Amino acid sequence: MKLLNQTIQNIEEISIDPDGKIRERLENLAIPKGSLGRLEEFATIYASIKNETSPKIKHKAVFTMAGDHGISNEGVSVFPQAVTGQMVRNFLNGDATINLFARHVGARVIVVDCGVNADFEPAEGLRIKKVDYGTANMVDGPAMSYKQAVDSLEAGIEVLLDEISAGLDIVATGDMGIANTTPSSAIIACLTGMEVSRVTGRGTGLDSCGWEKKVRVIEKALNVNKPDPLKPVDVLAKVGGFEIGAIAGLCLAAASKRIPVLIDGFVSTAAALIASAIEPKVNGYLIASHISAENGHLIALEKLGKRAIFDLNLRLGEGTGAVLGLSLVEAGVKILTQTATFSEASVSRPDYKKFGE
Amino acid sequence: MKLLNQTIQNIEEISIDPDGKIRERLENLAIPKGSLGRLEEFATIYASIKNETSPKIKHKAVFTMAGDHGISNEGVSVFPQAVTGQMVRNFLNGDATINLFARHVGARVIVVDCGVNADFEPAEGLRIKKVDYGTANMVDGPAMSYKQAVDSLEAGIEVLLDEISAGLDIVATGDMGIANTTPSSAIIACLTGMEVSRVTGRGTGLDSCGWEKKVRVIEKALNVNKPDPLKPVDVLAKVGGFEIGAIAGLCLAAASKRIPVLIDGFVSTAAALIASAIEPKVNGYLIASHISAENGHLIALEKLGKRAIFDLNLRLGEGTGAVLGLSLVEAGVKILTQTATFSEASVSRPDYKKFGE
Repeated sequence: MKLLNQTIQNIEEISIDPDGKIRERLENLAIPKGSLGRLEEFATIYASIKNETSPKIKHKAVFTMAGDHGISNEGVSVFPQAVTGQMVRNFLNGDATINLFARHVGARVIVVDCGVNADFEPAEGLRIKKVDYGTANMVDGPAMSYKQAVDSLEAGIEVLLDEISAGLDIVATGDMGIANTTPSSAIIACLTGMEVSRVTGRGTGLDSCGWEKKVRVIEKALNVNKPDPLKPVDVLAKVGGFEIGAIAGLCLAAASKRIPVLIDGFVSTAAALIASAIEPKVNGYLIASHISAENGHLIALEKLGKRAIFDLNLRLGEGTGAVLGLSLVEAGVKILTQTATFSEASVSRPDYKKFGE
Repeated sequence: MKLLNQTIQNIEEISIDPDGKIRERLENLAIPKGSLGRLEEFATIYASIKNETSPKIKHKAVFTMAGDHGISNEGVSVFPQAVTGQMVRNFLNGDATINLFARHVGARVIVVDCGVNADFEPAEGLRIKKVDYGTANMVDGPAMSYKQAVDSLEAGIEVLLDEISAGLDIVATGDMGIANTTPSSAIIACLTGMEVSRVTGRGTGLDSCGWEKKVRVIEKALNVNKPDPLKPVDVLAKVGGFEIGAIAGLCLAAASKRIPVLIDGFVSTAAALIASAIEPKVNGYLIASHISAENGHLIALEKLGKRAIFDLNLRLGEGTGAVLGLSLVEAGVKILTQTATFSEASVSRPDYKKFGE
């Protein structure tokens, strides 16, 4: 609890380009004013967080947080629970989609066992922060104790702080946990006040029958546990997951170190909502990467006040959307240091007042 | 004319995954079915063009085609004409936004003088295919002769064919030409039948007065020249530009060599419409990268039957949107060879029929 509280206290409110120097730099570049659209917005956010007009991005990492869920006993996923641990091994072998996308954008992958129902040998790129062997089944009571919720948040904080010594300019979130869209929908329903059916999707591929069952299971979990939306750690404990807590903790820790965070899809956004409810100042450090195909993701992004970078109908998780978004943010940031100015390039300036409007 | 005709004759109709082998490969990957959304679509298009289930992308290039426009005398841009040549030198120095974005995604930049009103010394990365020192002013008559239109198309074909020996798996289009959104709007208005005001934007930053003047200028050019929408080379000659013709030629040549083409923004899309009108089979090789902020781009993309990859409000040209889109297509293609299958990764398969729908 001490680490969590310290981390929260260290988060500073971000002020976007307070002295106008980033805008000035952008307007001196040998491009028409504003012609790089949202890439200029990303550059401005990143530079404001770093408090520099010529910031660099060198060290990039995606944290793929893994955990298991007691709720998977209710048959809310087409995959068996064992797949969480199997996929962790796939990540460590470097053969999953997140590995190739991370290689594609030059980011390192850190896999975190936050509470998988399997044991792993120590391995390069693996951090073991196991809170338990999966959560309890939330239709019968809380998914975890309050202490475990705090432990999961602190697991995320610890892995972020541990990685800083290796260099860390920007991070992407990721998740792996069979059935974890179910607690994510429960969290989003609780924190947005939306009906469960509006924020519940088909996950990895449920049919209509399966989807209806999933909605009923989430409604039951919310009725049994009655999480208080004004107490985000309570929400996490009652209807959350270990990897979801760790992602929320990662967001808080990154913000406390002025490191921007690319939020992946549905599960990561549920975690970001928890982090934002714990400390709203975290929002200034978060960038939404993509719009998941999962039903209700847009509602969660709106609650967070974020507009995603792209919409490619992804719904894999792992951090796949976040690392691709990270690469677009990086392209934007590079404008600040690598695009020549009008005077550097000896390019004539425009006359925007030419027509005397 | 002979090179153009040969090129067109060599374009084969693309059949998307005719034997279902690409779909089969995707469904064996250790991911939920369809969870990589449009990235799977890009992988499928690329693999179909290459006619391989495990295609690779190694050599990537963006062709930034430059040309000047007589219409710039009408004051339709906030930039003076000299900027076209100044920006060509900026590209050759490696200091423009297209250079850094190309470095960011690992593509090489080929700058082509298709008809700039300036002379350039030979330089690495520069191809001189000058048709003339800028087009004529299209409000007074055709922008170029029919022969020059063919020459500009063949300039694009020649640069593409020249580059193949250096390796070329996928290309991105780009443009540089002060005032070139004006001929692009004229082409799009002619080929779509839309009113000029609906397909004309503010270019590099016109105010309302300037925009109204630009619309009147385009309307006048169309009235004076009466391009025939059923004769695309005639349209190019009367209201086009040398770099626009070269981009259209590049698209045709790439298709003739089964090389996919990422289309950049407004100007490149006008060129793609010319290419598509010359030979509709080219469409199967074209991928639209982004939705430009320029008014009417969506109308042009619809005419082309394309849905863009992302929408970041870009309107710079140079190929900047296309190379960023290329990187997302490449991520998709890599799934086919780098994501482990269920059996390779020893991951349990899902049961999509679990609920007996």
